[in-house]
Amino acid sequence: MKKKKVSRIGIVTGGGDCPGLNAVIRAVTKTAIIDHDMQVVGFLDGFEGMVENRTVPLDYNRVSGILTRGGTILGSSNRSDPFHYPMLEDGKTTYRDRSDQLLANFDNLGLDVLVCLGGDGTMAAVNQLIAKGLKAVGIPKTIDNDLWGTDITFGFNSAMTTAAEAIDRIHTTAESHHRVMIVEVMGRYAGWLALTSGVAAGGDIILIPEIPYDIESVCAKIKDRKYHGSYFSILVIGEGAHPEGGKISVKKVVEGSPEKIRLGGAGNHISSLIEKRLQLESRVIVLGHLVRGGVPTPFDRVLSSRFGFEAMERIVRGEFGLMVSLRKEEVTTVPISEVAGKIRTVPLDAHLIRTARSLGTCLGD
Amino acid sequence: MKKKKVSRIGIVTGGGDCPGLNAVIRAVTKTAIIDHDMQVVGFLDGFEGMVENRTVPLDYNRVSGILTRGGTILGSSNRSDPFHYPMLEDGKTTYRDRSDQLLANFDNLGLDVLVCLGGDGTMAAVNQLIAKGLKAVGIPKTIDNDLWGTDITFGFNSAMTTAAEAIDRIHTTAESHHRVMIVEVMGRYAGWLALTSGVAAGGDIILIPEIPYDIESVCAKIKDRKYHGSYFSILVIGEGAHPEGGKISVKKVVEGSPEKIRLGGAGNHISSLIEKRLQLESRVIVLGHLVRGGVPTPFDRVLSSRFGFEAMERIVRGEFGLMVSLRKEEVTTVPISEVAGKIRTVPLDAHLIRTARSLGTCLGD
Amino acid sequence: MKKKKVSRIGIVTGGGDCPGLNAVIRAVTKTAIIDHDMQVVGFLDGFEGMVENRTVPLDYNRVSGILTRGGTILGSSNRSDPFHYPMLEDGKTTYRDRSDQLLANFDNLGLDVLVCLGGDGTMAAVNQLIAKGLKAVGIPKTIDNDLWGTDITFGFNSAMTTAAEAIDRIHTTAESHHRVMIVEVMGRYAGWLALTSGVAAGGDIILIPEIPYDIESVCAKIKDRKYHGSYFSILVIGEGAHPEGGKISVKKVVEGSPEKIRLGGAGNHISSLIEKRLQLESRVIVLGHLVRGGVPTPFDRVLSSRFGFEAMERIVRGEFGLMVSLRKEEVTTVPISEVAGKIRTVPLDAHLIRTARSLGTCLGD
Amino acid sequence: MKKKKVSRIGIVTGGGDCPGLNAVIRAVTKTAIIDHDMQVVGFLDGFEGMVENRTVPLDYNRVSGILTRGGTILGSSNRSDPFHYPMLEDGKTTYRDRSDQLLANFDNLGLDVLVCLGGDGTMAAVNQLIAKGLKAVGIPKTIDNDLWGTDITFGFNSAMTTAAEAIDRIHTTAESHHRVMIVEVMGRYAGWLALTSGVAAGGDIILIPEIPYDIESVCAKIKDRKYHGSYFSILVIGEGAHPEGGKISVKKVVEGSPEKIRLGGAGNHISSLIEKRLQLESRVIVLGHLVRGGVPTPFDRVLSSRFGFEAMERIVRGEFGLMVSLRKEEVTTVPISEVAGKIRTVPLDAHLIRTARSLGTCLGD
Repeated sequence: MKKKKVSRIGIVTGGGDCPGLNAVIRAVTKTAIIDHDMQVVGFLDGFEGMVENRTVPLDYNRVSGILTRGGTILGSSNRSDPFHYPMLEDGKTTYRDRSDQLLANFDNLGLDVLVCLGGDGTMAAVNQLIAKGLKAVGIPKTIDNDLWGTDITFGFNSAMTTAAEAIDRIHTTAESHHRVMIVEVMGRYAGWLALTSGVAAGGDIILIPEIPYDIESVCAKIKDRKYHGSYFSILVIGEGAHPEGGKISVKKVVEGSPEKIRLGGAGNHISSLIEKRLQLESRVIVLGHLVRGGVPTPFDRVLSSRFGFEAMERIVRGEFGLMVSLRKEEVTTVPISEVAGKIRTVPLDAHLIRTARSLGTCLGD
Repeated sequence: MKKKKVSRIGIVTGGGDCPGLNAVIRAVTKTAIIDHDMQVVGFLDGFEGMVENRTVPLDYNRVSGILTRGGTILGSSNRSDPFHYPMLEDGKTTYRDRSDQLLANFDNLGLDVLVCLGGDGTMAAVNQLIAKGLKAVGIPKTIDNDLWGTDITFGFNSAMTTAAEAIDRIHTTAESHHRVMIVEVMGRYAGWLALTSGVAAGGDIILIPEIPYDIESVCAKIKDRKYHGSYFSILVIGEGAHPEGGKISVKKVVEGSPEKIRLGGAGNHISSLIEKRLQLESRVIVLGHLVRGGVPTPFDRVLSSRFGFEAMERIVRGEFGLMVSLRKEEVTTVPISEVAGKIRTVPLDAHLIRTARSLGTCLGD
Repeated sequence: MKKKKVSRIGIVTGGGDCPGLNAVIRAVTKTAIIDHDMQVVGFLDGFEGMVENRTVPLDYNRVSGILTRGGTILGSSNRSDPFHYPMLEDGKTTYRDRSDQLLANFDNLGLDVLVCLGGDGTMAAVNQLIAKGLKAVGIPKTIDNDLWGTDITFGFNSAMTTAAEAIDRIHTTAESHHRVMIVEVMGRYAGWLALTSGVAAGGDIILIPEIPYDIESVCAKIKDRKYHGSYFSILVIGEGAHPEGGKISVKKVVEGSPEKIRLGGAGNHISSLIEKRLQLESRVIVLGHLVRGGVPTPFDRVLSSRFGFEAMERIVRGEFGLMVSLRKEEVTTVPISEVAGKIRTVPLDAHLIRTARSLGTCLGD
Repeated sequence: MKKKKVSRIGIVTGGGDCPGLNAVIRAVTKTAIIDHDMQVVGFLDGFEGMVENRTVPLDYNRVSGILTRGGTILGSSNRSDPFHYPMLEDGKTTYRDRSDQLLANFDNLGLDVLVCLGGDGTMAAVNQLIAKGLKAVGIPKTIDNDLWGTDITFGFNSAMTTAAEAIDRIHTTAESHHRVMIVEVMGRYAGWLALTSGVAAGGDIILIPEIPYDIESVCAKIKDRKYHGSYFSILVIGEGAHPEGGKISVKKVVEGSPEKIRLGGAGNHISSLIEKRLQLESRVIVLGHLVRGGVPTPFDRVLSSRFGFEAMERIVRGEFGLMVSLRKEEVTTVPISEVAGKIRTVPLDAHLIRTARSLGTCLGD
C-alpha cells in the first residue's frame, strides 16, 4: 500500500562537489526505475533548483555511463540554505526564507519523496524542511567524513586517496632536497582527511583540528629526524589545525552550533613558524579543491551504489526522515534530526591515532 | 613482566604476493623498535626461509620508504607448508615434515614470537605450529578477501581497485565495438573480488562461485540489453564460477576441508558457451596476476599499518595464538584455531548482492 | 574560393578502438565549426555506417567533454572493408563490393570531404575510395605505431603507458616470488609496443617480431640472471615474436601485401619452451585489449588535437588524398597512396634497440 | 685508444627535483658497467657534494629497481653554483668561488669525465668548469622544457601529465559548481608546461609568459562562454604570465642574461582581477611542487634511458663538452657552450599555439 503511494521521487545534491555523487544518482535512478517502476526528477544546482523550480527528468539513458564520472550531472550551488536564501535586490544581497516556495514547487511537480545528497549543512536544512512536512531520505556526502551518524561518507575514500597520492609525489622531492614540505588538506573541524592520508602516505608530522599542537613539539620532531639522518620531513596538516584546536571542535559538537569560524590556512601559518624557529626553508602545498574532483575510487562507487539502493529500500517501506548510514560495516539508517547540526570529529583514542603514534608520527602534542 | 619476556620477534610472509605486505612489515618493525625497544628478524621467502634458516635483520632504515612498495621485501615461496615440505631427493620431489627443523631454527635465533602474514593456507600451517608450542600472531592477508574471522583482509582493496580500473578500460572498447567482453578475475571459492569490482565498474553480468549460474540467463541478459539498445555487455567472472558452484563452496566451508579442486578458467568456458548460443563474438581478458602487484591503495596502507600495530599490542600484552582482524569497523582478534581451514564466502543475502540485483545486474541465476 | 567549396565534412573512425579517437573528433569538429563555419557529420560504426548510411550530426555540445574519454563516440565495426563487405545472405556470409553505395550515400548527404581516422587497413580502403573520386584526409591511428609515413600514431603513447604500468605491477610479484613472468602485448608485425613498454618498465628480455629469437639465448639470459642473484626475470613479448619473425616482417613490408597470417600467441608458446628447458615455472599475462581502452594520456590528447587541427588546415587549403603525420617533430602530411598497404617496423639499428642492448636487455638474438 | 683513457666517470644531478633523474643514473651506470667495464661514482647533493667531496660508488645493485622511482638517489641541493657558493662565515652567508676545490676533488677521485644532469643554471656552471679544463657531458633535465638546444628535456612529459591530470580533476568541480577555476603551473619564462597541459586538459583560457595578456580579453572569454551556456571556465596559467610577459622573455633570451626576476604568482593576481571585473568568485589552485615528484611516465623513462645511453656513447668516442639532446626525433648532441645562459621559449607561431587557438582557446591576447 505504501509502495503505491510513492511513485515520483526527486533528487537533489547539496553543498560542494564530491566524488561519488553521480554513482548515487545512478543507483537511486536505476533502482527506482527497474525495481520499483517509479519516475525520477533531478533538481538542478542543489537547493537553488528547488527554489527556482529548475529540473531535469532522469531516466535509464541519462544515468548510463556516469558511474565513473566526477562531479554531479545535476550541478550544485553556493545558495545552499533555502531558509536563508541570498537574493539580489536593489543591487545588494538580502537573505530570505524561500522554504515555502521550495515546498510548493515540490508539490506542484507531483513528487512524493526527496532523496537528498549532502553534508551537515544540507542535512540541517533538510531537517527543517521535514519539520514543515517534507518526506525525505538523506544520503551522507562529504569528503571530510565528519558527518554525525555514519562511520563513513561517500567521497571520503576518493579524497583521501587523492591526498595520499599527492603526498607520495611530494615525498620524492622532500627526500631529494632534504626539505621540510607542508601539505595542507581540507578539514576545518575534523581531521579524518589529514590523519588518514597522512598515515597512508607516511607523513612524519600530522596536525589535525582535534589535537592542539605545540609548535615546539613540531620543531623538536624535525630536529630529531635530522639528528637521526633524515634531512627531510613531511607535514600533513588539516586546514583547521590550531594550538587551541581541540577545544573549539569539542565545543562545536557539544553545543551543536556549527558557527563557521574561518579556521583555514594552517599550512602557511605553521610554515612561517618553523622557518622562524629553525632557520629552515619549507614549502607549502595546499591541495584544496584538487581532492574534490576526479573519478571516484572503486570503493566509493560501491559505497555510493549501496547507499543509493538502501535509500530506495527505505522509501519503498515508507520510512522517511532518515539518513542512510554505514555503521559497523552494515548499511542502516539514522534519524536526520539526530544528525543535523552535529559534526563527527576524530576521537582522541581512535585506533588510527594510536597506530600513528606507534609508528613514530608526531601529532603535535 | 610479560613485556620483558618478548624481546625478539620474527616476521614471515606466507603464500602469494599481495599489496600491503611491506606496509605491515614496516608497521610491525617500527612499532617494535620505537615503542617497545625490541629486535626484529625477517625470514626470507616464507616458510622456506624458516626451514632453511635464512633471515635478515630488520631495523628502522631497512623498512624506510617501503610503505608504498608492492611485493614483499622478504620474498615468498611456493613451498608454503612446512609439514608437507617438497624436497628434491634422487632427482624426484618427496614431501617431508620439516616443522621440527623450523621450530629448532626459531629457537636458535632466540626469537620469542612469530608475526605471520598470510591467508587460509598459512594460517592452517601456523595453527599446527602453535599446537607444537610456537607463540604466534597472525595478520590476515589475501587479495581474495575470503579469510574466515575478519571482515576484510589487507590487499583486497588494492586488488579490487586494480580489477575495477581494468574493467573501466575494457568498457570503452566494449562500447565502441558493440562487443561482449569477459573479464575473469581471481577467486576460486569466493566471489568478493568479482562482485565488488564488478559493481564498482558497472558490470552487466557478474558470476561468482557462490551462485550457480545458468548460461540461459546469461544469454537472455545479453539479448535483453541488445533489445534495449545496448549492443555491448561486460561480464565480470570469478575464476571459480560454476553452474554448480554454490554447492561446492558451501560444502567446503561447512566441512572445513579446502581440497583445492582446480575450478579456474571460467572465463574462456563461458565465452565459448555464449558464442555457440548467440553466434556472437566475445573477448576474454584474464586479469590474473595483474591484480596482485603494484602500489597498495592508501586504504590498504592504513589497514596494513593498523593490523601491524595491533599485532604488536597483543604481543606486548602476552596474547598469542590469535589472528588480528577487522570486525564491525573495529580492529580486534580471533583465535587462529577458529580461522584455520575455513573460507569466508559471500553470503547470498549480502547487501552488495541485493544492491547489484537492484541495479539490474544479472548474477547468473 | 577553395574555402567556399568545402562546407560539409564527414568523419569516420575505422578499425579497432584506440585512445585519442574522441580527442581527434573533438578537434576536427571544433576547428571546423569555430574557425571555418562548416558543418560536420559523423558516420556511425566505421565503414559500416558509411555503407548503411547511419550518421549523427556533430556540433559543439556533442563534442564537449569527450577529450578525456576512451573509445569513440561514433562507434566502430568489424566490417572494415567496403570493397569486401560481409553480408548475411541466405544464412551465410558473402562478401560484396559496397563502395558505390558508400560513395552514393556520401554524395547524398551533401558532404565535401571525408576525415578518416584509421590504421593501415583503413588507409588502404580509403586509398581505393580516393581512386574512385572521394576527397579524403587521413589521420593515423593505431596503438601499434606501425603505420607507414609517420613517426608516431595517436593512441600509441597511451597503449605503451598502460602496458608499461601493467609490467610495473608484474614486477613486484616476479621479484617477491622469484618467478619468470611473461607479459605478452599486441603487435603482430611490429614491435614498437613491446620494445618501448619493455624498456620503460625495465624488462629483462624483450622479444619483437622484427628480431628472430633463439630460445637458447633467452634461457641463457634467465640462467645468467639467476647466477648473479636475480632469481626472477621479466619477459616482454610482442604477440608476433617468432624464431623466423624478422624475415616475415621484412617480406611483408617490401612486398606491400599484408596478408594477415595469425602470428599471435607467442607468450604461451615461449612459456612452455622455457619450462621444458629450465624446469622452471613461468606465468603468462596477456594484456591484449587492456591497452586499447581507457583515458588517453595527455600526450595523446595533445597529439590528437594537433592532428585534427592539421587535417582541417589541409582541407581548407584544398589539399586532399593526404594523411596527416608527424615527422621529425613537425606535423606534416604524406600521400595516402604511399601509406596504403605498408607497415612500419622497428629498424634493427634503432637508437632504442641499441639503448636496450646497452642496458643489458636480451633481445632474443 | 680513447676508450682506454676513460675508466672512471662521475655523475651529478644539479638543480631541482625532476622525474626521470634515477632512470638516467641507472642507464649511465648500467651502460658504463656492462658495456664499457668502467667504474661510476655518484656525487651527493649536486654541486655541494662536488665541493665538499661527498660521494657514493654506483654499481649494478645500487641502481636496480630505481627506474620507476621519483626524485634522485643522489640528492640535490640549493647550493647550485660552485662559482658563487654560499658559505656561513661568522654567522652570515658569504659567496665564494669554490670551483678550484671542486676540480681538485674531481681529480683526486681519479675521475675522467663528469656526466651532469641539469637545466639552464647547471649547464651554465658546467660550461665555466669546462673552460677550466673539466671533461663533461650534459643531459638536459627540467620539468619546464625550456632548455636551449633540445626539443625536449626529460621530466617534462611527467610534469605535464601530472598537471593535466590535476586539471582534469578540477574540471569536474568547475563544471558542477559553475565556477571559474584557475590552475597555476610552474614556468617563469617559458610556457611549455601551461600550454601543453592546458591543451591536453581542455583549458578554456591559457596564459603563458611568452604572450602578453589583456585582462579584458580574458574576461570577455569568460562572459562569452557564459552567454553560450558554459557557466564555468578553466584557466591554466604559467606562473610567469604577465601583461608585458612576452617582451621580458624575448629580452632574456636575446641577451643571454637570465636575471632571475621573480615573475611568479600570476594565478592569484589574475584571480583578483577577474573577481573585481566580473563580480565572480574564482578559485586558485597552485600546483607548484606537485608536478616535480612521483613516478616518471613511461615516456620519460624511455627518454631518460636513451639520453643516458647516448651520453656514454659520446664519452666512449672521446666527445666532451656536449649536451645530449633530442632534435627532430633523433638523439644527438649540442655544445654546452651554445646552451649555457639561454632559454627556449614557445615560438609564437608554434603548431600547438595555432592548434589551441583553433580549438577556441583564449591565449589572453
